[in-house]
Parts: sequence; structure tokens; C-alpha cells
Amino acid sequence: MYIEKIQSPADLRVMDIATLKAVAKETREAVLNRVSKHGGHVGPNLGIVEATVALHFVFDTPKDKLVFDVSHQSYPHKVLTGRANGFLGDVNDMDAISGYSSPAESPVYDNFEVGHTSTSISLATGLQKARDIKGSDENIVVVIGDGSLSGGEAFEGLDEASELGTGIIIIVNDNEMSIAENHGGIYKNLRLLRETNGQAECNWFKSWGFEYKYLEDGNDVEKLVELFRSVKGTDKPTVLHIHTEKGHGYAPATENKEPWHFSMPFDMETGKSLVDFGSHESYEQLFSDWMLKEMKDDPTLIAVTAGTPMAAGFTQHKREQAGKQHVDVGIAEEQACAMISGMAKGGLRPVWTVYSTFIQRTYDQIAQDLCVNSNPAVINVAWGGVNSMNDITHICLFDIPMLTSIPNLLYLAPTSCEEYFAMLKWAVIQEQKPVALRIPSNGVIHTDSPVDTEYSYEPKFKVMSEGSQVAVIAAGSFFQKGENVVSLLKEKGVNATLINPRYLNAVDTELLESLKASHKVVVTLEDGCKDGGFGQRVADFYSVSDMKVLVCGIKKDLYDRYDTQKLLSDNRLQDDQIVADVLSIL
Amino acid sequence: MYIEKIQSPADLRVMDIATLKAVAKETREAVLNRVSKHGGHVGPNLGIVEATVALHFVFDTPKDKLVFDVSHQSYPHKVLTGRANGFLGDVNDMDAISGYSSPAESPVYDNFEVGHTSTSISLATGLQKARDIKGSDENIVVVIGDGSLSGGEAFEGLDEASELGTGIIIIVNDNEMSIAENHGGIYKNLRLLRETNGQAECNWFKSWGFEYKYLEDGNDVEKLVELFRSVKGTDKPTVLHIHTEKGHGYAPATENKEPWHFSMPFDMETGKSLVDFGSHESYEQLFSDWMLKEMKDDPTLIAVTAGTPMAAGFTQHKREQAGKQHVDVGIAEEQACAMISGMAKGGLRPVWTVYSTFIQRTYDQIAQDLCVNSNPAVINVAWGGVNSMNDITHICLFDIPMLTSIPNLLYLAPTSCEEYFAMLKWAVIQEQKPVALRIPSNGVIHTDSPVDTEYSYEPKFKVMSEGSQVAVIAAGSFFQKGENVVSLLKEKGVNATLINPRYLNAVDTELLESLKASHKVVVTLEDGCKDGGFGQRVADFYSVSDMKVLVCGIKKDLYDRYDTQKLLSDNRLQDDQIVADVLSIL
Repeated sequence: MYIEKIQSPADLRVMDIATLKAVAKETREAVLNRVSKHGGHVGPNLGIVEATVALHFVFDTPKDKLVFDVSHQSYPHKVLTGRANGFLGDVNDMDAISGYSSPAESPVYDNFEVGHTSTSISLATGLQKARDIKGSDENIVVVIGDGSLSGGEAFEGLDEASELGTGIIIIVNDNEMSIAENHGGIYKNLRLLRETNGQAECNWFKSWGFEYKYLEDGNDVEKLVELFRSVKGTDKPTVLHIHTEKGHGYAPATENKEPWHFSMPFDMETGKSLVDFGSHESYEQLFSDWMLKEMKDDPTLIAVTAGTPMAAGFTQHKREQAGKQHVDVGIAEEQACAMISGMAKGGLRPVWTVYSTFIQRTYDQIAQDLCVNSNPAVINVAWGGVNSMNDITHICLFDIPMLTSIPNLLYLAPTSCEEYFAMLKWAVIQEQKPVALRIPSNGVIHTDSPVDTEYSYEPKFKVMSEGSQVAVIAAGSFFQKGENVVSLLKEKGVNATLINPRYLNAVDTELLESLKASHKVVVTLEDGCKDGGFGQRVADFYSVSDMKVLVCGIKKDLYDRYDTQKLLSDNRLQDDQIVADVLSIL
Repeated sequence: MYIEKIQSPADLRVMDIATLKAVAKETREAVLNRVSKHGGHVGPNLGIVEATVALHFVFDTPKDKLVFDVSHQSYPHKVLTGRANGFLGDVNDMDAISGYSSPAESPVYDNFEVGHTSTSISLATGLQKARDIKGSDENIVVVIGDGSLSGGEAFEGLDEASELGTGIIIIVNDNEMSIAENHGGIYKNLRLLRETNGQAECNWFKSWGFEYKYLEDGNDVEKLVELFRSVKGTDKPTVLHIHTEKGHGYAPATENKEPWHFSMPFDMETGKSLVDFGSHESYEQLFSDWMLKEMKDDPTLIAVTAGTPMAAGFTQHKREQAGKQHVDVGIAEEQACAMISGMAKGGLRPVWTVYSTFIQRTYDQIAQDLCVNSNPAVINVAWGGVNSMNDITHICLFDIPMLTSIPNLLYLAPTSCEEYFAMLKWAVIQEQKPVALRIPSNGVIHTDSPVDTEYSYEPKFKVMSEGSQVAVIAAGSFFQKGENVVSLLKEKGVNATLINPRYLNAVDTELLESLKASHKVVVTLEDGCKDGGFGQRVADFYSVSDMKVLVCGIKKDLYDRYDTQKLLSDNRLQDDQIVADVLSIL
């Protein structure tokens, strides 16, 4: 086996093409070994194996700098840069190696921690400028997928790379796919370029000012080597457009590309999942079913997604059912946000579903395009909270501080399935304001309690059970934690009040004022970063009174692949810790 | 005079070309009347007069929808849509009309409140989709300047407009300028298109999938009418590239385009400013002078701007002096943020200067590209606070909540000129973390007090004068307010402690703990939105103690063209109000 012996890419550079091909085969097997046992990105990595081998063969890494976009296609790169252990061993060895480019893991070969899309060219222009200023001669090489090209930052990066006018090599890895199908006008041009073997006069890359070369056989090591050699050391901004196959070399992944973009552990022979998802309800499924049903009666109801239709449960089948009432804008969250504002202005009822970690891309669009205009569009924030993605680049803990700092945005936090759909229905029908909803991230929990069907624009917290001394204000997916805390306090002889705040964007001053009469301690629970969040507003409200406020949430920090229970314990968010802290104040 | 009698654009549609030309002449004079007396955007509005007359003549506004990008070129549109009073009268009549597109002002003719760049196409695609769903037949017409094309959201909008594939007319108003010169690879293509009268094969717009027409004489009403008529009712995504002259018809503005982008009141005959700027120092001048001086010794020091070089004091002359050590990326804040991260990674020392209102465009880039990577780049945040831009779209009150919710970012708030430069020098030299500096926005205030030259990564607040009972923590440009409050309290017999927190991103827990010994009340003062801001973190710290905390800042809300003193009073931020509130707690 070659790859076990490859200490660094330098070991590749003494090989001949036949050996490189063998290395590629082994690398593919190593990737498959990891993803089948550990889970991870399948399609993107299988498609880029040959290109990665050729890159490290031709370029003088680590002197030459590689920057991967999203970096969910960096597994073969990891195999070849001293991290094969994370791919060959058993599943316990794999945890040490992340699924993304990471200087913390490999300061020599990985230049950036990357997880969000469309950032690679912009980051690389910084390295390009640094090289030009320092007068050194390293190659700056970007690997970006066609799907990632649709993000605004990628466009801004192309614009600057061309402006700088010096050597940068941008490898556009065109597998004709984003996570799902591509959306955007540029994909018509990419198709034209593929169909003309790169010869079409109308060439999007050339019009930006790039030198351009096309390679149809993007999974052929030899041709890739030839291509890369032909531009190594270039002093011009250059695009290499390579046509690859997503999932290359693994039949299940090439036959059914969208679900094989990412997979939980699976049986390599059959491709069948090793994880029993059971028949649990999911908000993705419930939401998409509800939307499809409502769409039939209301042609103005539009489901919007930005490259991640599955965040909204819009499978390929459901997208077809929705037809023109589903819009995917590509990986272009800014576009999604401004477009829903325009849609609402034009009389439609759009609901944009976006993961908490990606809503960060639209602070200004939410503030300016949407909230200053007060257009009644709805944003569905998915997976916000501790029970979510836990890679450092995908942490979902910051949507509360972010969204609650934007004026004129309601941010509602339903605590159950019934409350979520009641809020959603109200948000869709009302015509005055943008409303964001934080979909519960602690599973689909049903309630028998009646839920309101009308919501005011001013925050109205709801008292769920009335007690005294202690009031627990438990928001959204931490509501059940609030129930537990109240129940444990009862065992200790404290009959606490339980409150569902429902609104995160502001406090219900009347209710908070009323608590002063018979409460000494208010506890706030929020499933996210507490710095700048909900509870601190409650603390501010009581700050000149005698009320004690225990603000419970996650401390602002960088977290990487955290263990949820440990994160909760470290932040004193386990039920018994909260109870102990309350009792110590009383 | 025609324009006094124009009640609506319908009145234009009965005119002949000669009369339209007379209307254009009067409109230009009206615009000049306003900007010379009231101040405002000069060049962008003068250049678009003829196109605006032709637009309203050809298209059936308000049924047909106009969307202006940035909308600092919407003055002629306002003149022709019932708001000529804001341009013809004396200066007191002008205040009622804003400098931007505003449905609050004209719900019929203005479709969006707009102030930030590059949003128009994305917003318009929402109207486009709404029309397509509803089956109506209005034209959707976008007016976007060449400068605004460099922003990521504009690219995402182009991508979607092309994808939708139905009628939208995007008028690219090419005056060969952004606020300053253009930066980005696309401008090479725009030049080629101008030089070939739109005939070049390599056409950036066509490569996106647009129908394309070029007009060299973009200030000729008759030709514009002909052009617009040729595409009215189109069912295809269409770009009309019109070449206009920025400042057209007013010699001072065409001769010196950059300073005439925006002007304070001036004498129409001579073009001389009517505002005496005196010889006041400014941070723009001091910063750029300092940078140029340091650059001579340090070739790795790079000044970065994103379309607003004057935010950093980089006049055309100073840009030339800096040479390759100044990078303007165009109006592309995401690019600026990612690029400084890459530059720092590559060994440069970049300092990016950006207005508070525009840093909102880079929440995710600061979080992901910069802070997750912990690259030691410096961000200079300009004009944050109440003494700043006050249009609803340009409010500078949100940078504290926004930046302090991002992990691994130091946000320093200097209180004087000396402290600013001490912090800047440290931030530039240190090699561990991204650092943002909030440039004081209350004028250049000097201090005789010694300032530290080294700063820790953990927050260390500084006690400026020690008292008891009350501690005033006065941040950044509200520090002098803190001094006043302490001084007024002394008159009332209270010897308060004055603290310069210096750090906004976290609290100095040791110092806050120590205050408990001899203080009953802590007052926090911050020059910005208090919801999610600095003071609420202090309130959180003390929330289970007996310390009373008075959190002073601006309430989160939408503000439009506010009066600063009234804003302060409404938020109980006048010195005497703060003192009264403190005494009421004691």
C-alpha cells in the first residue's frame, strides 16, 4: 500500500503516472473507509481524488499554497498530507481528524479553517497580495466547486483576483452539482463551456479577465498533471475548469448524487445506511408537508431555500410538487433574504428556511433589505442550539445574539410542534412585519397545552404555571429544560413559576414588572450563546431592582466538535446544576 | 416652469422630446438647487437626470416598478414623482424629503427603503417573481451604477435574475466611477464594452445569460427614450448598459468627480463650500498620515478600504503615495474582510477601515474567515455612535452588539487620540488575534493622561479616578460623558469612580468583582444600541449580586434622520438625566 508510506506530498513527486493512479485508487478507498464508518461528505471527496493527487504531484506544497472552498472536499488532501490515519484506521482514530481544512490540525498544509462556502478565492487573494508584496514566487491555488460559485463572496473574490492581475490559479471543480442541483444564470454558461469543450466564445471566466483552460476528463490523473503543469508558475489570474464526476468510483454515490453528498455511516457493499433513523418525526418533513398542503390553496405561498433545500425538507420529489412555489437561489443567502423582501412587497408570502450557521451571511440584508422595509416575509431558522452541527465552522449558537440586535424583527421561539405551526401560520398570514422563527432543535415535541393562534407585535410572555419566589423563563428548545428545573425545584420545596417567553427579540416589561411582587429570582434559559442574547436583556431590565437574575446560556467562545453534555456541564446548564445555582441564590 | 406643474409622471407622457429636454434641464437645476443649499449626493444625481426623465416617459410608473440601487441617484426621480418641493423651495422645505428612495415618503413610486449598495437586483427579483406568480405584466426596472456592481449581493442578484428567465430590465448606469475609481476585474470588461460601443464578443453580461444593449450617449433623452422603448414589455432578462457622465451639466462636478460625489452646501457659481470646516483635526487625516509614515519603514503594512477610501482618509493623493500598500477592493466588504485574513496569514499587517453601517455586511466573514482563523488583521470601525450618519439606512448604532457577539474578536474602544494610536500600534504589531478598533466619533480629543502601549487579550478595564458608592464605566466616545457625569455627581456630594473599560468584547471580571467592596451602583455608558451591547454584559455579571447596574445606551429601534440631542434625551443619555437616574437609585 502506497498511502500508508506517504509521509508528505514530496513522496508523490518521485512517482510515475501509473503509481499515481494506484495512489488515487488507494486514496479513494481510504475516503470510502472513513465515510462508511464515520460518516462525512462522500460525493465531493470521491470526485476530487485524482485532482488532489495531481495537485500535490505538480505543485510544491506546502510552499505552494492550496485553499479549499468549503473544504468538504479536502479528505484526499488530508490522506496525502500526513493524516492517512484518520482514513485507514478504525472509527476511533478518525475523530482526531476533522472533516474540513484546519490549520489547527495541519499548520503546514492547511491554510485556513473553512466550512462555509464561497470564501476560498477571497482568502486566497490575501495570500496572493502577500506574495506579491514580499516578492516570493509560490503558487496560490484555489479549489472551488461549481456550486460554491453562486455565493456573493466568491464573485467578489473573482473580481479582486482579476484586479490584482498577478498569478493565481483557480480550479473550478465542475461536477454539475451543488448539494442539490445548481441554481443561477452562470450555470447556463458552465454548461455551454462543457458542451463546447471550453471553446465557446461567450465565456464567463474570460469576461472577468481570467486566462482559461478546460479539461473534460477531470478524473484522469495524467491529463490533470498535464493541465496543472501547463500553468504552474503563471503570472496571470487563471481559471482551470475541470469537469469531474461527483461520487466518482462508488456506484451508489454516482447514481444518486444528492443524498450521497453527505452520509452517515453506511454499508460499503450495499450503500445502505447503518444508522436506524426510525420513524421519528422531523420538522423538515412536517414543515414541507404543511407547505405543500397550504400551497394548493394559496398560490402566493413560496418556499425559499439557499442551496440547502433539505433544511426545509424539500426533497427532490417535494421540489417537483411545489413547482414554481419553491425557489432555490443557489448558495446565495444574501439573495434569498433580499428576494423574500421583494416577494413580500410584491404580495407573495415567502418562507425562507436557513440553518442557524448560515444566517450569519445575511446580517445586513436582514437589517436593510428586510427590516428597514418592514416587509412581512418569514424566516425559518433551523438547527439553532446545542443539539446541532458542532464543527467549529458550523456552530449554531449565535443566531439569538445576531437576530435580536436587528431592529424591527420579531424572533419567535416555539417550544413545541403545535406552537411552531401556530406561530408559522400567524407569521405567514400577518402583513406588517418580518418574522423569524427558531424551529425547535430538540426533536419534535408535542404538547396538549393550548397554543395561541394570534401573536402581537409587542412581546407577550406566557405564564405556563404560576408559583412564587423563583420564575424560570425558558425559551424555545430549552423550554423542556425549564420544565425539568421547575419540577426539580418542587422536590426541593420551591414552587417556581414557569414562563414561555415566546419572543426572543425583546422582553415583556409588563410581565417582568409583575414578577417583582412575589419573586426573588428569575432564571433565563436560552439554547445558544448568552453573550448579547435574550437573558442579558432580562438582566438589564431588573438591573436596578432587587430581583436576582440567573442568566443561563452558552459562554461566547470558539467550540470545535464539542460533546453536548460536556458543553452543557461546562456552562452549568445541566438541570441539576441550574437547580443548585438557584438554591444558592435563594 | 414645467416641473412645478408635474403632479405625476403621467404628465410627462403627453410631452414631446423637446419638452422632455426642457424638463431634464429644469430637473438638473432643481437637483443643484437642493444640493447647493442642503447638501447631498451631487455627481450621481446629475448624471442620471436624462435617464430618469426617459424612464418615467417610457414606462408606466407606478404600475411599472423602479428599483434604485443605493438610491443616492433618486433625486431626479423624486422631482418627477410629486416631490419637487424638496428641490425647488428653500432649505427648510428640503428636510421633509430624504436623500434616498423611501416608501415611507412615497408609497406609490418608491418600492424600497435603500441606502446600502448592490441590493437592487436582488430586491427586484422578488418583484419579478411576484409578477410571474400573479400573472400580471408590469415591467420591473432596476437602476444600478457601475460602482455598485462590485458587491456580492449584486452578483447573486444577477445570477437569480438570469435564472428566473423572465422579463427584468437592469439599467447599468456606467459613469466610470464608484465613489472613487472602480476596482475589480469586471471594470476591464465594462471598459472594453464602452470602447467597442457594446460590440465586443467577450461580454460579461451576456455570459450571465442576459440580453444586452449599449448606449454611448447616456445623457441624451431622445436616444434613451428609443432604447427604453425597444425593451419595454420584454419577457427576457435584459441589461441596458448606458454610458453617462457623473456630474453632467455642472462643470465643477465633472472636472473633479470624486469630491463631488457628495457635497455639503456650496456656492453654485464657484462650487466653493459654504461650510467652514476650519482646521479641525480628523481621524481620517491623522490615520492616513500615520499609515503613510509607518508604511515607509514597514512594507508589509497595508491600508485596505472597500469603496470608501475616504473613511480612512486616503485621498487620491495619499492613495498614490501608498501605492501597492493601499488596496481598495471596490464596494465589496466581504472580500475586504476575507482578504485581510489571508493577508495576515501571509505575513502582512493589514488595517481595513470601514464605516460602522457597512461593517454589517461582513458578520459571517468576520466570524468565519477572520476570527475562527485567528489571523491578526486589524479592523478600524469608523463613525460608530450617535454623532454620525442619521438616515434610517445608515444608522451607526449597531456595531457594538454585532461585533461583541463574535467569538475571538477583540473590540477596543479608545477614548482619546493618544489612546487610539496606542491601541492601533499594538493591534498592528501583535500577531495572535484579529482586533477591531472603534475610532472615537466625538471629534479628536487629546489627553495628557498616560496611555498604555501594551494590551492583553483578556479584558483589562482601567480605573481613571477612584471613588466609592458609584462607578461609571464609560466606553469609547462616551468616555467624556462619563467624565461629565462624575463631575456632576461630585457637585451632588457623590465621589464616583471613573472607569475606561477599553474593551467592549467582554468584561473584566476581576475589576468588576473588586467594585463590590465599596460600590452600590455601576453605570455603563456606550455610544450605540444597548440591546445586546456592552452594558448588558455588565448587568449580567452583577445579576445575582446586590450591585445595581444602570445600563445607558440607545434603545434598539429604527431611527430616521434623528436629532442627536433629542435621541440622547429620549434615551435618558443627557448628562443631567444620567445623574438624576443614579441619584434615584442611591
